[in-house]
Amino acid sequence: MASILLLNGPNLNLLGQREPRHYGASSLAEIERDLTESARRRGCELRAFQSNAEGELLDEVQRARGSCDFIIINPGGLTHTSVALRDALLAVEIPFIELHLSNIHAREAFRRHSYLADIAVGVIAGLGAIGYELALQGALDWLRRRQQT
Amino acid sequence: MASILLLNGPNLNLLGQREPRHYGASSLAEIERDLTESARRRGCELRAFQSNAEGELLDEVQRARGSCDFIIINPGGLTHTSVALRDALLAVEIPFIELHLSNIHAREAFRRHSYLADIAVGVIAGLGAIGYELALQGALDWLRRRQQT
Amino acid sequence: MASILLLNGPNLNLLGQREPRHYGASSLAEIERDLTESARRRGCELRAFQSNAEGELLDEVQRARGSCDFIIINPGGLTHTSVALRDALLAVEIPFIELHLSNIHAREAFRRHSYLADIAVGVIAGLGAIGYELALQGALDWLRRRQQT
Amino acid sequence: MASILLLNGPNLNLLGQREPRHYGASSLAEIERDLTESARRRGCELRAFQSNAEGELLDEVQRARGSCDFIIINPGGLTHTSVALRDALLAVEIPFIELHLSNIHAREAFRRHSYLADIAVGVIAGLGAIGYELALQGALDWLRRRQQT
Amino acid sequence: MASILLLNGPNLNLLGQREPRHYGASSLAEIERDLTESARRRGCELRAFQSNAEGELLDEVQRARGSCDFIIINPGGLTHTSVALRDALLAVEIPFIELHLSNIHAREAFRRHSYLADIAVGVIAGLGAIGYELALQGALDWLRRRQQT
Amino acid sequence: MASILLLNGPNLNLLGQREPRHYGASSLAEIERDLTESARRRGCELRAFQSNAEGELLDEVQRARGSCDFIIINPGGLTHTSVALRDALLAVEIPFIELHLSNIHAREAFRRHSYLADIAVGVIAGLGAIGYELALQGALDWLRRRQQT
Amino acid sequence: MASILLLNGPNLNLLGQREPRHYGASSLAEIERDLTESARRRGCELRAFQSNAEGELLDEVQRARGSCDFIIINPGGLTHTSVALRDALLAVEIPFIELHLSNIHAREAFRRHSYLADIAVGVIAGLGAIGYELALQGALDWLRRRQQT
Amino acid sequence: MASILLLNGPNLNLLGQREPRHYGASSLAEIERDLTESARRRGCELRAFQSNAEGELLDEVQRARGSCDFIIINPGGLTHTSVALRDALLAVEIPFIELHLSNIHAREAFRRHSYLADIAVGVIAGLGAIGYELALQGALDWLRRRQQT
Amino acid sequence: MASILLLNGPNLNLLGQREPRHYGASSLAEIERDLTESARRRGCELRAFQSNAEGELLDEVQRARGSCDFIIINPGGLTHTSVALRDALLAVEIPFIELHLSNIHAREAFRRHSYLADIAVGVIAGLGAIGYELALQGALDWLRRRQQT
Amino acid sequence: MASILLLNGPNLNLLGQREPRHYGASSLAEIERDLTESARRRGCELRAFQSNAEGELLDEVQRARGSCDFIIINPGGLTHTSVALRDALLAVEIPFIELHLSNIHAREAFRRHSYLADIAVGVIAGLGAIGYELALQGALDWLRRRQQT
Amino acid sequence: MASILLLNGPNLNLLGQREPRHYGASSLAEIERDLTESARRRGCELRAFQSNAEGELLDEVQRARGSCDFIIINPGGLTHTSVALRDALLAVEIPFIELHLSNIHAREAFRRHSYLADIAVGVIAGLGAIGYELALQGALDWLRRRQQT
Amino acid sequence: MASILLLNGPNLNLLGQREPRHYGASSLAEIERDLTESARRRGCELRAFQSNAEGELLDEVQRARGSCDFIIINPGGLTHTSVALRDALLAVEIPFIELHLSNIHAREAFRRHSYLADIAVGVIAGLGAIGYELALQGALDWLRRRQQT
Repeated sequence: MASILLLNGPNLNLLGQREPRHYGASSLAEIERDLTESARRRGCELRAFQSNAEGELLDEVQRARGSCDFIIINPGGLTHTSVALRDALLAVEIPFIELHLSNIHAREAFRRHSYLADIAVGVIAGLGAIGYELALQGALDWLRRRQQT
Repeated sequence: MASILLLNGPNLNLLGQREPRHYGASSLAEIERDLTESARRRGCELRAFQSNAEGELLDEVQRARGSCDFIIINPGGLTHTSVALRDALLAVEIPFIELHLSNIHAREAFRRHSYLADIAVGVIAGLGAIGYELALQGALDWLRRRQQT
Repeated sequence: MASILLLNGPNLNLLGQREPRHYGASSLAEIERDLTESARRRGCELRAFQSNAEGELLDEVQRARGSCDFIIINPGGLTHTSVALRDALLAVEIPFIELHLSNIHAREAFRRHSYLADIAVGVIAGLGAIGYELALQGALDWLRRRQQT
Repeated sequence: MASILLLNGPNLNLLGQREPRHYGASSLAEIERDLTESARRRGCELRAFQSNAEGELLDEVQRARGSCDFIIINPGGLTHTSVALRDALLAVEIPFIELHLSNIHAREAFRRHSYLADIAVGVIAGLGAIGYELALQGALDWLRRRQQT
Repeated sequence: MASILLLNGPNLNLLGQREPRHYGASSLAEIERDLTESARRRGCELRAFQSNAEGELLDEVQRARGSCDFIIINPGGLTHTSVALRDALLAVEIPFIELHLSNIHAREAFRRHSYLADIAVGVIAGLGAIGYELALQGALDWLRRRQQT
Repeated sequence: MASILLLNGPNLNLLGQREPRHYGASSLAEIERDLTESARRRGCELRAFQSNAEGELLDEVQRARGSCDFIIINPGGLTHTSVALRDALLAVEIPFIELHLSNIHAREAFRRHSYLADIAVGVIAGLGAIGYELALQGALDWLRRRQQT
Repeated sequence: MASILLLNGPNLNLLGQREPRHYGASSLAEIERDLTESARRRGCELRAFQSNAEGELLDEVQRARGSCDFIIINPGGLTHTSVALRDALLAVEIPFIELHLSNIHAREAFRRHSYLADIAVGVIAGLGAIGYELALQGALDWLRRRQQT
Repeated sequence: MASILLLNGPNLNLLGQREPRHYGASSLAEIERDLTESARRRGCELRAFQSNAEGELLDEVQRARGSCDFIIINPGGLTHTSVALRDALLAVEIPFIELHLSNIHAREAFRRHSYLADIAVGVIAGLGAIGYELALQGALDWLRRRQQT
Repeated sequence: MASILLLNGPNLNLLGQREPRHYGASSLAEIERDLTESARRRGCELRAFQSNAEGELLDEVQRARGSCDFIIINPGGLTHTSVALRDALLAVEIPFIELHLSNIHAREAFRRHSYLADIAVGVIAGLGAIGYELALQGALDWLRRRQQT
Repeated sequence: MASILLLNGPNLNLLGQREPRHYGASSLAEIERDLTESARRRGCELRAFQSNAEGELLDEVQRARGSCDFIIINPGGLTHTSVALRDALLAVEIPFIELHLSNIHAREAFRRHSYLADIAVGVIAGLGAIGYELALQGALDWLRRRQQT
Repeated sequence: MASILLLNGPNLNLLGQREPRHYGASSLAEIERDLTESARRRGCELRAFQSNAEGELLDEVQRARGSCDFIIINPGGLTHTSVALRDALLAVEIPFIELHLSNIHAREAFRRHSYLADIAVGVIAGLGAIGYELALQGALDWLRRRQQT
Repeated sequence: MASILLLNGPNLNLLGQREPRHYGASSLAEIERDLTESARRRGCELRAFQSNAEGELLDEVQRARGSCDFIIINPGGLTHTSVALRDALLAVEIPFIELHLSNIHAREAFRRHSYLADIAVGVIAGLGAIGYELALQGALDWLRRRQQT
């Protein structure tokens, strides 16, 4: 049974509390609960973790090594600044999808560069909360395809 | 009943004929057929079009005006070079998702720039053929959310 | 009797159908008809052509060789991307004015670069539909001045 | 009755004295006289001012506030260097057309950037002395269109 | 009664211990005490927080939401590197002034870019410890002006 | 008794006449009068000068040599374009604070570069008219600190 | 028997009609006929195709798949702008030589970048019409060397 | 007796667990133990600290002030992103050597820039685990040379 | 008898009053007097002009037209910012030497770009007050060589 | 009888000794011998020279002046770094072809810039040892065409 | 018995004669002698060579092929300018360490780029003369590790 | 008695043999002879050296150490490419003037950057052969001024 880790970076704990029209009305807790449930229905296990601290996210990525098959990560602002997060993901060699709720290409120029995207399986951006569900489907499809190779 | 247009740009007619391990074994015809079917199950209508000629893609986008609710577009190489395609999508004011089979961030540097991404609803890249199915779900979710506003 | 070619590039066939406040309420057909009439009154002949396909525009520029004295061209999105259009205009050695309905300097940064402007007689931008009429006057003035040399 | 201000920046007082083949044989005085006459025929009033001093041009722009409907400005070399001129035009909120006698795109690279173009109604470049007349027509057309809104 | 949050980022706990001639002889504790007192005299409440950890600063910004009217922040080295801090300040929508003790423009080139300055009310740099007092006055003036609107 | 020079550059004579919500309702005359008064109360003398002409500002800076202890300067658009102003301030060796009413970091990209900031004591931006008062306090604090050294 | 495809892009149909001193007096038809003949003498088959339309060139490259051993391509202006052409050549995996009649390094700066050169076997530029003959020899030499490996 | 601090940044706790061929088979614990022993033999004291959290590394650098003579630091991914770490090292004024196990010049372009290198005594990169031993020798040599001055 | 114009731009009126060790102890008046004398000895006439105002320098350059054979210009800070000065020198078509007292290459990066150097006969920089004398000799040599052609 | 100089720069003396699959098995001596022979058959004289020292190559280019009609040069690494070689070729005014065995566009980014290409007749790259033979044919064709003019 | 080549580039023959406080008091002869001795003690043979001429260094690198196991190179100023040196080291395929006495990161910006670093085993910079000894240890460690693989 | 070294770099041995109208008709031998004579008249000794080889120029600069008071150097193409020449001049600490016969600012963009200019006393460019004489006067003036300090 595949094991998925859902990581959310800085400020994503505020989800649902601000701009519900833009980000949807769901809180992070609801998103994590729904995705855990969806994962279970699809026959896999999902664990969720959020932190505002880069160091704690690194610890979590390192802990995932050996016990986790795929990471779905919304790195928040660390997307554009954390080489250490890139290094952690390179080190544990777990495939991952990079996820953004808003369309990072339609915002400030500095958001167009990600330190993670080129080592990710793929990227989903701009689709709102359903992006988590789509990332889960994409992750399971990727794991299935790899198994077939 | 929502009407979706699926557009595929230059060279995507070759899908399934090369590097099946990388892009999956499905031909473009199969993908179009499956997505049409999936759309029907979800209660919407999907029309598919592919061309190697920028001009024909522009004509198709223009024709969609008034009759189409959402566009799912894999612009191929035009992603990085066609201001005219951007202008057509701006003119018809139809929301769209930009889709790429491979992870454009893991390839040549010039593939990191898209003339479409900042005016798209969102972007999906690197997830292979299932990306089309995820884009359809994302599109329908977006249309549902807009209706609620 | 001077012979003028009016070329309109991708998406300009949509003129008048969208944002009339911005671009004026005239369709491209009306603009072409009015400019043809204005040219006749000023004692010259004007032929108009529009296409969304770069290749067809190139063909038209090539055909103008030998039979046409001046080109007024609104290249649309090709302004910023088509070296081939530049090459065609260089090859036929017909003087031309580059025209834009909107002010390209007030939009996205990439619209500030034109592959045609430095080989044009001049550029008119941001003045709306009257720009075509002004370009015609500018063209005739240029032809008259050249004759005097 | 619309009131137009014609501003010419540094070195334009030399017009007609040098390179008549390139810039035409008209002196600035003749151009100002002709344009004043043309404005009168079209039912509007035109005042002309030229200075080599940025400060005097700023004073003139500031004085135009409240009493002038449109500015036609050929900023000469200040086009590429004067943020203060941009600020003055922003402050008085008078619509203006930026005009250049020669084609600035066909000259040194630094002439391609204008501190005024993106806040102008539009730009005319490369058409020689007739450019002033075309700018006048463009200005009146713009004022008429705004009135209709 | 207005409530102000004073945030100091990495290494500012060392204030007063090094280079007293440059930064003044006051320790951070003294600055915080003086500013709290000054705020009280001006009829508002000030709370102070310092941390070397980005995550703790983010937590503090988030906690300020709803209970705090203005933030005075000296982000230290995070000024130039933390998109997450920018995101937190964007999310809580609390107006803030960015403060630097030394003149960041007179140091290494990378200190000229701030991820916060363009979303701040304003910036004070190079005035030493009195900068905190000036920022307080600026903050109260800004709150008063907003109230009048 | 310290002697302060207050310099305002191009277009600042328009203060109070436009966008009072943004810049405050005070005219430049009022600001100069208030600051002169505030300076007198703090035991120093303040002289004010404004010009739209770079050359006159240079003359004024040069005249300050030997008779003035500190300059508070709002260089307006010259901030970003005048090396000559920088040279004058370098030559007279009078410490100065650079002041901006609006937040230059939240505007066009070219406003982020100042030819003066790196040789200034410090910079205050975005705090509106109270910025002049804060600059005065900062100047006096700087003079006091230097005396103590 | 090796099969070679000779592709000529936009505006190369004008060969021989302009600037014979620079490009030689041969028309494209003559060059194609001579090269076909030369290929026959060297024991291989050559097919020639020219188009001004990118889409038709893409179609032709795709058709070459499986039936063609080498492509000699003069992409004209598409050299510098067509990612789609690069993608087509990458997809069909046919080795190719990029050819230019004039020396692209001695012209405008944008001609120094090619979207094809780094995936080509090699490049020949500036040698005029004989370049086609040299490319043919280079192609046959490359095929012979590959066979020996 | 000289006192040395050995600092290892994010992800270096994974040493020895991955890619032993590349990084050697030694764990960080072994490296720290060996270097402590080597330091003792050379008559100095070495303390080792590793953390994935930037804030904790800053705290450690600050604590070293006054009690430590030299720092050997492998900042991991923070090398390229942490101005705060630079500031801490500037503040405590302890000489340090920057160390990298792999050759950062042979990897992604962004690894070529270090926020620490220009304020370091020197840099050692690409020599694997023995780099720590070499850094220790270099540090002691530097301390000895300084003593002689 | 050759006629030379000596132009000095902003802040050069301060010569001799500051940093005599660096710039020499001569005032501008002495330099102008000495150079006028030297010119007379060499059989030519020299007129000197200095202004802090760009506009006045432009007026002076324009006046030189027809009556002056060579200009020696030390443009001060305008070197790096004045396109209008370049335009004036282009318009009057008088050969000129650009002169700097200090070595502009050894100072701030922005001083390395001159808007005049590429249209000058030549440039002398860094040699102090004797540079004026050398420029005079260079000017006369240039005039003599031109006469011989 | 035309006289050709074949120049090979640094490291080309190693040809044939390394990577025979890539560069062919021929040594430089064999290539020089074969090309000398080929030249003789085509009725011209070829002299060959190789050196690792830039200065010796410059001497050789200078000596060619007056006695040599065309240069075929493979400048090796000097292609990207030697302005002196460019200057020598400019000075002697001998037409030349720049040759590279490997495809410089498919290697490190710095190899895409040549200090020679824009003053060469043309460039051949990536075709291996046969490139020398093709360059010889291209050179003779160029000389023949020039003779006809 | 391993064979090491020590190469020193331009100006390193001046070592010990200038700035002894900065570079140590040892001459290059002493360093070479000491390192030769140290190598002998560690059971390997070291040969030393210095030249101011790039060509002679290339010759020496080429000669090392086949007879030498490792190169320690201090390329001096050639570090930043010599592609030919890079090519020679690539051609002979001998592993090497790049060494600098001073900290190149603390000097002019152009010294931060090395044409050798990305193909080196590693880099040591800023540690003074002991750097040679450390490089020797690093080289032997690298050779031992490779033998074990 | 002051001792001056005159250094001329690559290709300057060709002086007088080409483009006499541009560079004057004097050969390098004549220039060296005249300058030696001029130096003698002014009471100093001048030695001249030219080479096409960078290494020989470095040797010459090194030899000048201790015996030479000033260097006049025309580095030719090495101006823009030789860090080693810069290093040699830094090492021997002899003041020097950089000289160019032609105006390097009016030529290719890469000629605008010099590796020597910022460490030179000054630069003379574009004045032809008389530049050598002017440099000599500038050098002697500089030596006299230094003596007075």
